Amino acid sequence: MTQQAAGRIFIVGLGPGAPEQMTPQARAALAQATDLIGYAPYVARVEAGPEVVRHASDNRVELDRARHAAELALAGRSVAVVSGGDAGVFGMASAVFEAIDHGPAAWRGVDVTVIPGVSAVLAAAARLGAPLGGDFCVISLSDNLKPRAVVHRRLAAAADAGLVIALYNPRSKARPDQLGEALDLLRTILPGDVPVAFARAIGRPDERVILTDIAHADPEQVDMSTLVLIGCPLTHVIDRADGGKWLYTSRRVEESCA
Amino acid sequence: MTQQAAGRIFIVGLGPGAPEQMTPQARAALAQATDLIGYAPYVARVEAGPEVVRHASDNRVELDRARHAAELALAGRSVAVVSGGDAGVFGMASAVFEAIDHGPAAWRGVDVTVIPGVSAVLAAAARLGAPLGGDFCVISLSDNLKPRAVVHRRLAAAADAGLVIALYNPRSKARPDQLGEALDLLRTILPGDVPVAFARAIGRPDERVILTDIAHADPEQVDMSTLVLIGCPLTHVIDRADGGKWLYTSRRVEESCA
Repeated sequence: MTQQAAGRIFIVGLGPGAPEQMTPQARAALAQATDLIGYAPYVARVEAGPEVVRHASDNRVELDRARHAAELALAGRSVAVVSGGDAGVFGMASAVFEAIDHGPAAWRGVDVTVIPGVSAVLAAAARLGAPLGGDFCVISLSDNLKPRAVVHRRLAAAADAGLVIALYNPRSKARPDQLGEALDLLRTILPGDVPVAFARAIGRPDERVILTDIAHADPEQVDMSTLVLIGCPLTHVIDRADGGKWLYTSRRVEESCA
Repeated sequence: MTQQAAGRIFIVGLGPGAPEQMTPQARAALAQATDLIGYAPYVARVEAGPEVVRHASDNRVELDRARHAAELALAGRSVAVVSGGDAGVFGMASAVFEAIDHGPAAWRGVDVTVIPGVSAVLAAAARLGAPLGGDFCVISLSDNLKPRAVVHRRLAAAADAGLVIALYNPRSKARPDQLGEALDLLRTILPGDVPVAFARAIGRPDERVILTDIAHADPEQVDMSTLVLIGCPLTHVIDRADGGKWLYTSRRVEESCA
């Protein structure tokens, strides 16, 4: 009956970073894990006893990690595959199912549970006000796994349709010019005063928020830990009495707006 | 110095429904509230002592609720404005800032904190597998606040650009035909075998999930509590060993896909 004693995989979204933004459900799953798998900074974020095995890995090896998780689960371990934010939004969830889809038939018998988390885009939006008040899209700017032409086609379609755009993976050392190209493209579609926000490391000690507009948005202020939010013509800035600002997108859309 | 003792507003995302999916941050904010404001079923979900005043209201009176919250806060109360899921995603957050933007100047001095939550789209995606593994958009199908032509333009643009589409407010008694129209439109753009999921009341006792494809998707199986997920050509179905299915979207996009 060893097959009955088979292990399982939890795919866990740890939330944006602050412990109070991780759900009790995620915490309970992590408490059951015998093994932790993920990108090293996320594995390091998990509190666990010395008996828990930590398999921390570099960035960009998602499929290797996913296969490792399936092998460990089949060997009877309880594996927590961890991602920051929500694991389903440019995190490890898709990689785990891709590995299972292309792996040995036995992997389709593994018990997999995905535990949702507060994604970076939701945390950034909350910190800014309510910029996602209307329809919106979430796009990764990375061209590691998709052609840059597809990224540009999607950005243009979204801006043209009046969607607020949240950009993940906006910039890295290997791709220093891509955000600038994207902003140049969006400037051909959107009015120059459309608000743009750079929300870095929201909920963590090194949090930083920059509010600008698309005419003045400077890619040099953005790094890989930054969530870029590009408003639509219905995104407004409110001047607070304390000198700060709130950002929100109107829920009401007129016929002239798309 | 009574102005220093002014109240505040927490805009709180309660999560999908299960208590273990509400963040500790949300719970802490609710514990500070003297007043709860929101759509009646969400206010009812909050545990609070008898000293906490519950201002439950009907659907579709978001701006009235928002103004009420600002008035109470200015009178020194600590108000929690609550929404299901994440308050920034078709919840109360945008309405509160819209009210402040168009309200008396004093409202810009109110202390407002938005507490993000696990949104319905993230909970539904986790329940299904990893359908949001690529770029995606979140669109409300309701035409209460925007023309139907805008909704259709956005749906067509998103499908054409290869985005996975999450639909909020897909159907109500007042709008029985709109989801059918949207699906008919999407059938002219997407291959018939693109997966479609109806995820109803995820994380609650009356949860129900239906997995189909766009050729066969039946609007009659959808109500207002359902999140509709429409895949893209890169969304795949995996047959599990136990007879169930997982849904995931490939992270890798070829040049031919958009």
